[in-house]
Amino acid sequence: MTEPRPLILVSNDDSYQASGLHVLIDRLLPYGDVVAVCPDAPRSGQSMAITVNGPIHVTRLDDYHGAKLYKAGGTPVDCVKLSMHHILDRMPDMVVAGINHGSNASINVLYSGTMGAVMEGCAFGIPAVGFSLTDHAPDADFTPCLRAIDTLVPMILERGLPRGICLNVNVPDIGSVPADMRLAVPCRGHWNDEYKEYTDPHGNKFYWLTGKFENEEPENELTDEWCLSHGIISVVPVAIDRSVPVGNDLEWLKEISARYTSF
Amino acid sequence: MTEPRPLILVSNDDSYQASGLHVLIDRLLPYGDVVAVCPDAPRSGQSMAITVNGPIHVTRLDDYHGAKLYKAGGTPVDCVKLSMHHILDRMPDMVVAGINHGSNASINVLYSGTMGAVMEGCAFGIPAVGFSLTDHAPDADFTPCLRAIDTLVPMILERGLPRGICLNVNVPDIGSVPADMRLAVPCRGHWNDEYKEYTDPHGNKFYWLTGKFENEEPENELTDEWCLSHGIISVVPVAIDRSVPVGNDLEWLKEISARYTSF
Repeated sequence: MTEPRPLILVSNDDSYQASGLHVLIDRLLPYGDVVAVCPDAPRSGQSMAITVNGPIHVTRLDDYHGAKLYKAGGTPVDCVKLSMHHILDRMPDMVVAGINHGSNASINVLYSGTMGAVMEGCAFGIPAVGFSLTDHAPDADFTPCLRAIDTLVPMILERGLPRGICLNVNVPDIGSVPADMRLAVPCRGHWNDEYKEYTDPHGNKFYWLTGKFENEEPENELTDEWCLSHGIISVVPVAIDRSVPVGNDLEWLKEISARYTSF
Repeated sequence: MTEPRPLILVSNDDSYQASGLHVLIDRLLPYGDVVAVCPDAPRSGQSMAITVNGPIHVTRLDDYHGAKLYKAGGTPVDCVKLSMHHILDRMPDMVVAGINHGSNASINVLYSGTMGAVMEGCAFGIPAVGFSLTDHAPDADFTPCLRAIDTLVPMILERGLPRGICLNVNVPDIGSVPADMRLAVPCRGHWNDEYKEYTDPHGNKFYWLTGKFENEEPENELTDEWCLSHGIISVVPVAIDRSVPVGNDLEWLKEISARYTSF
């Protein structure tokens, strides 16, 4: 009997129709059997949202270049959970999400549905990585991502990742393969002017998300944003456990029990 | 001129109609001016999801016991962002979310819309805390939460919280005020059997989220779940920056640049 090939679960937040997904599947096929389970419509900005009180339809589509392909009427995290419990016939060896149309660097990791799928894979104890290109266009050229996939995927299949840690890989859209890829930390930054205001025909206010990203430490060479603005691919390890050790700045919280009982 | 009272922004994921919200507002009013901006319908499990490509209606409702009350057609994070940019006339001194109908302990912090609102407040640099009761019922008795609110809210208004750290407070539904509140870490755990399978009238499969929580370390007295199962309120500090220092277990990643360039 031959050893089964690695099983790679793929998801994203741009839907089963996104070209970034197709590029990713094509690039992963040499490394294992690929099953892709993706939202049936774009679900950008879904973070780790789950559908808690409604039905989720799952439909198998025609295979794509030898990969099994499913669409699900839910979020990226729903796609991963359904895969683990109902779609895959065994636990995958790796979860890969993307290629995202648009950056998931800095604070964007919190809102990204693509990184939500990665973190859900990580919560299942599976090595997981997300790839994103800093170009939102539906017809973006994903060439800059190809060598990063070829470098990281076999390494992670061989070595795994520590439990509870996944990778957020962002690739600058420089039109060619970047010359370097670096380990980085997430840049401190935020979005400003985030909503445009409108008035509907009945006089009611409504808002539409917009705004631009503000880098709070543009000179910090250790950050993902610095890498991207210098044509370098960033690799950021992300922990799904966000608890923090209580240091000096939270010392007072240690007395919380005494304060509570004496209140 | 008198010093303005602290401004407290309130949100949740159970909607502006949830009784947990009303209990929270009533309990906060002695500590400051309260403005509540909440989803117009239940949005449990929305994590840090944002509405990236659609309009969000915002409607001011009748004041509730002296608190300004708004409903928004978006996620909990949308509510917080809209508050900061369009609804509040100044930055709030604190963001408080809840009281959530149901536990947000352990891994649930990742999926919770209520904790999404808390983390968004934290991303704005505002001290932020979420309160949850381990009872999903719409008419749950929130009495067990009251002393925790009275203990923590004035402390946090006075001392603040370190930048990037917020608090996840979970309260056991023991029908009376718990005797103790403790600093805790999130319990390792997961959900299993997560979907019930159905077939629709046209022969198509669909799924509905269900399943139960599995505690992976029930004897660990340091965890939030241990506290809750022993009638104790848990207070877990949560970091919004989830990057991790690269320790021995990720040493190979340090060579990533060399591996990439030689690929």
